[in-house]
Amino acid sequence: MKNNKTIQQVCIDAIRILSIDAVQAANSGHPGMPMGAAPMAFELWTKFLRFNPDESGWINRDRFILSAGHGSMLLYSLLYLTGYDISLDDLKKFRQLDSKTPGHPEYRHTPGVETTTGPLGQGFANGVGMAIAQKYLSARYNKPGFDIFDYRIFAICSDGDLMEGISSEAASLAGHLKLGNMIYLYDDNHISIEGNTEIAFTENVKLRFEAFGWQVIEVKDGNDIDAISEAIKSGIDEKEKPTLIKVRTYIAYGSPNKVNTAGAHGSPLGADEVKLTKENLGCDKEKTFYVPEEAINYFKASVEKGKNYFKNWTNLFEKYGREFSELSDELRNSISGKPVRDIENMLPLFQDKDGAVATRTASGKVLNSLAPFFPDLIGGSADLEPSTDTFLKGFGSFQAGNYAGRNFHFGVREHSMAGVLNGINLTKPLRAFGSTFLIFSDYMKPSIRLAAIMGINPVYVFTHDSIALGEDGTTHQPIEQLISLRSIPNMTVIRPADANETAQAWKCALETFHGPVALILTRQKLPVIDRSKFASARNLLKGAYILSDSKKFPELIIIASGSEVYIALEAQNILDKENIAARVVSMPSWELFEMQSEEYKEEVLPSKVRKRISVEAGSVIGWMKYVTEEGISIGIDKFGKSAPGNELMKEFGFTADNIVSKAKLLFK
Amino acid sequence: MKNNKTIQQVCIDAIRILSIDAVQAANSGHPGMPMGAAPMAFELWTKFLRFNPDESGWINRDRFILSAGHGSMLLYSLLYLTGYDISLDDLKKFRQLDSKTPGHPEYRHTPGVETTTGPLGQGFANGVGMAIAQKYLSARYNKPGFDIFDYRIFAICSDGDLMEGISSEAASLAGHLKLGNMIYLYDDNHISIEGNTEIAFTENVKLRFEAFGWQVIEVKDGNDIDAISEAIKSGIDEKEKPTLIKVRTYIAYGSPNKVNTAGAHGSPLGADEVKLTKENLGCDKEKTFYVPEEAINYFKASVEKGKNYFKNWTNLFEKYGREFSELSDELRNSISGKPVRDIENMLPLFQDKDGAVATRTASGKVLNSLAPFFPDLIGGSADLEPSTDTFLKGFGSFQAGNYAGRNFHFGVREHSMAGVLNGINLTKPLRAFGSTFLIFSDYMKPSIRLAAIMGINPVYVFTHDSIALGEDGTTHQPIEQLISLRSIPNMTVIRPADANETAQAWKCALETFHGPVALILTRQKLPVIDRSKFASARNLLKGAYILSDSKKFPELIIIASGSEVYIALEAQNILDKENIAARVVSMPSWELFEMQSEEYKEEVLPSKVRKRISVEAGSVIGWMKYVTEEGISIGIDKFGKSAPGNELMKEFGFTADNIVSKAKLLFK
Repeated sequence: MKNNKTIQQVCIDAIRILSIDAVQAANSGHPGMPMGAAPMAFELWTKFLRFNPDESGWINRDRFILSAGHGSMLLYSLLYLTGYDISLDDLKKFRQLDSKTPGHPEYRHTPGVETTTGPLGQGFANGVGMAIAQKYLSARYNKPGFDIFDYRIFAICSDGDLMEGISSEAASLAGHLKLGNMIYLYDDNHISIEGNTEIAFTENVKLRFEAFGWQVIEVKDGNDIDAISEAIKSGIDEKEKPTLIKVRTYIAYGSPNKVNTAGAHGSPLGADEVKLTKENLGCDKEKTFYVPEEAINYFKASVEKGKNYFKNWTNLFEKYGREFSELSDELRNSISGKPVRDIENMLPLFQDKDGAVATRTASGKVLNSLAPFFPDLIGGSADLEPSTDTFLKGFGSFQAGNYAGRNFHFGVREHSMAGVLNGINLTKPLRAFGSTFLIFSDYMKPSIRLAAIMGINPVYVFTHDSIALGEDGTTHQPIEQLISLRSIPNMTVIRPADANETAQAWKCALETFHGPVALILTRQKLPVIDRSKFASARNLLKGAYILSDSKKFPELIIIASGSEVYIALEAQNILDKENIAARVVSMPSWELFEMQSEEYKEEVLPSKVRKRISVEAGSVIGWMKYVTEEGISIGIDKFGKSAPGNELMKEFGFTADNIVSKAKLLFK
Repeated sequence: MKNNKTIQQVCIDAIRILSIDAVQAANSGHPGMPMGAAPMAFELWTKFLRFNPDESGWINRDRFILSAGHGSMLLYSLLYLTGYDISLDDLKKFRQLDSKTPGHPEYRHTPGVETTTGPLGQGFANGVGMAIAQKYLSARYNKPGFDIFDYRIFAICSDGDLMEGISSEAASLAGHLKLGNMIYLYDDNHISIEGNTEIAFTENVKLRFEAFGWQVIEVKDGNDIDAISEAIKSGIDEKEKPTLIKVRTYIAYGSPNKVNTAGAHGSPLGADEVKLTKENLGCDKEKTFYVPEEAINYFKASVEKGKNYFKNWTNLFEKYGREFSELSDELRNSISGKPVRDIENMLPLFQDKDGAVATRTASGKVLNSLAPFFPDLIGGSADLEPSTDTFLKGFGSFQAGNYAGRNFHFGVREHSMAGVLNGINLTKPLRAFGSTFLIFSDYMKPSIRLAAIMGINPVYVFTHDSIALGEDGTTHQPIEQLISLRSIPNMTVIRPADANETAQAWKCALETFHGPVALILTRQKLPVIDRSKFASARNLLKGAYILSDSKKFPELIIIASGSEVYIALEAQNILDKENIAARVVSMPSWELFEMQSEEYKEEVLPSKVRKRISVEAGSVIGWMKYVTEEGISIGIDKFGKSAPGNELMKEFGFTADNIVSKAKLLFK
């Protein structure tokens, strides 16, 4: 062991050693990043980050995001060393089945992990969402002398994070919103998987972020913890601009033969090189997973600051509860999770006599009925709010001058909207929604998937949901988007048939806590189904229900969703006159239906009725499950066209007549 | 009519009038953008753009991209006025069923449209691909005195284009590659759908693009065509940097009441306002779709330059054919479309005795066997080439100093990779592929969809295709990606079972001309199936085939794809010992199978065999079509885990034993 090492250096090297030992034991993983970024992470976690490992859900904790999620061992090492509920044994099981230490950090799976990262750029955008959430919460709840929410957002990100478009979008938004509560450390190691970043990434990152309205600070030596400290301080002091600290590091620092090579990015160093590295760093080369006692103690001591901070905050929050009981109750109530509020009675009731209503319009009305009762419900649109109808009237826009505003203008930035929504929804007690056209869910997919993996609950309002949007044509008409969303595990997709089903869909969304919910809404007006004649819209919660039964036991079942349901009712009428007993099932959600009992499913879709037709203006893939092999699916398996919506619906066969003629085929 | 209008002004206003009349006639569309951008478009098209409307496929034409595709009437007006095969009548049918003038410009549908645009940011990235293609073609084919390829790429883009992340990615790449052949005009009208861009977009665009390595020129008045001219000239003169010309315009310029309002973005002006606008611009307010004679003549005259340029080029190209016959033949051959080359004989043959091979590795070998014979085949990876195995050895990297290189380093920029691939594949005779992990196809989806809409033919090499990738865990393990890709119309998805099927998959990809092809490949090694015992891998082209039949007529069919096929063979063996006659069908591609005759399908999957099992490590959605309602699908309907791949395959039931026990359920 080198004798002249400072205690800080001993700690930093301990992180490095834990990381390379774990990767070596797993024979899989990314050793290079933790080795290069250990000093900045050490400095941040021991000097600045306010947290209490015993209370990982503390609402005023500083957030730390490892956007470069492949460097997970850096985070796991820190969580272990600072006393989170993760043991040395857990580190030894890195990347093993059902261990606490999966290949990339997973939210909820490992205490202290703030968000699931790995797909690059996502953590970057999540942090912007968290910073927005902090600004909103502090604007709503802080009072003079009561900075209940004064936490900061820190992240470490890599060149890969910064190359991804989602980061550019999110960074531009963060600069626009003057999110001075963000400090991002950029692990600038000049190495990516294909080699030196010179081969693809030669832009001036500093200038780009300055163009976005960020403060950019450069640290020339990633091992200079004093310089890192100074930079973080400047970042904290800067209240108007987000801060990017560009830290020049060397991947696999400490490894004599692998330092500064692409090979150290995603492969273990090898047993020999691990030993050489330990030797080179002045550590005991014969020991594995070894942390010197003094490092253990140093980390333990450093955590005390955070625990004290937490204690003081708890006292402050108690006092706040006495002085501002209403706000405090509201906050506690929101945090408690499931809303105790009676949503059903807040919903507007739509009447068929008031005329046809597009489900996007109904959604806007519902949202505005609910908004006053849900201070934790915030959201916005990727520059399509006049079309998606999601503005919360009277609640202002969230802007630099007005962080209490509840409406977001994300700009034409769908992907980062979804990433930002994840960051907001990771912040208790907030619930955030985002809206755009259904077709642009494609732009958001990587972030939607992460919401589903994390089991968090953004609500997506996707309007203009089929060819019926009309003239905008092929590029704007969803075909495969419904099945694409439905195929994501943990996702709930709801395509309501009319205004009242839309109200129920919002209720369902706000009461769903296991994953994201997508509301699929029309651009065009739809008749409001007369519920005095047909089954209640409350049945939407069961995913599918008998909307209109035949007089006698059905010979045929027509299953439809969304804008095709009223057409199915028309077809039922015609068939009735021709003495074909058809049942109409409204099926707004496959996922909700699958959650029902077998008895209920059998009641709605009796096995012995094999003549079935599905009607949905989208891909038919997957419908066979409900129509049986003998059934027919009316859908679309090619791209759309540009023309008025009603003409297209005829052209593509979404008419009562076509349903009837297809039905007759089944009786031949 | 104002008497003091210059002829240029008359022409510009003619574009404006045609645009607003068409939108008004359709009662749908985007009038504001064409009105604001008419001067820059006029100047570009009449003074700089080299094209011949009679030869819209001329390989050396300048490319013009309307990235802001919603302003389609701007482009249609220009196409009409410059003599492309589009009539005044076509303009009158704007946005009507099956007209030549759909809501957003569509490639192949309308002559002169270079790429399908509408989803923002896509055209921007396509242009970068076209610029790359131009650089490659000129490096390969130009000779001193023979600048066969000296065309430039022009585009008009909007604030929405620049907000999208894909544009940032593509711009960074363009700057890195020093694509001085690009000149983009930025229609900086300060208005987006939700209002003034101030609400979401306050970054310094000029600085950002300078950070990307672009030349940025500002034109303060979008009606100042001399200033626009100067700027375009400077853009053309700049050979090292791409150029962005930031032109301050006013949306709906000319409309007295709608100018500079968000309302003019996506709605018709209204009949009254159309008249007021005509009056205001000094045009005849009673006439619709009217173009003054002198404007018609001016446009006609301006096109002569392009036609002459074309004539001279044709002479040059003939001379080139004589002096450089080999290169010229190669080029003509490539352009002719379908390769006459005998791909079958270029493919490597893999033998089971040489050991197991990952299909990604096999793909790398196949690609390298084909590369010498396909000079038009170029491609690369989004920073994962060492893992996706797509480097064309001996053909160098495409970089600013070496535009003849055939390997691209796209950086960690999957979305723009896909957008750039579209631009390259829109350039005859090139065929470009791109590679990344299958999970990241999600990042690329919007561009993949556009490739499918356009019917162009990028090849996507998607490796690490299932949970079997192992330790990287949940965030990296595809579950729903296969079905998501399969649900895109015009798309061909191929998941080969072994090395030899992989070779056939490449053959199929290169012989597919109706849309993109995705090759789905393993990270892990797979046994090479002994084709002396089992059916030939050439059957892959049929999408599904009897790989190994039962001795007697099958009681059971096991259908598998990719890495699950050899497991199915193992199961067949076990079942055989238990006297269950099972057939194994390898089904690498649903789409290819669906193209076969009903007889063939019946041969492979006889209707009377109702006991069927599908085995595929992904979502089971859609498999019922092949296994019937009575069958069982072994797949994954939740997210993956982090652990060694072979352990996960067991954990998730991808074992011969599990197939066997599921099979037995069918016989109970």
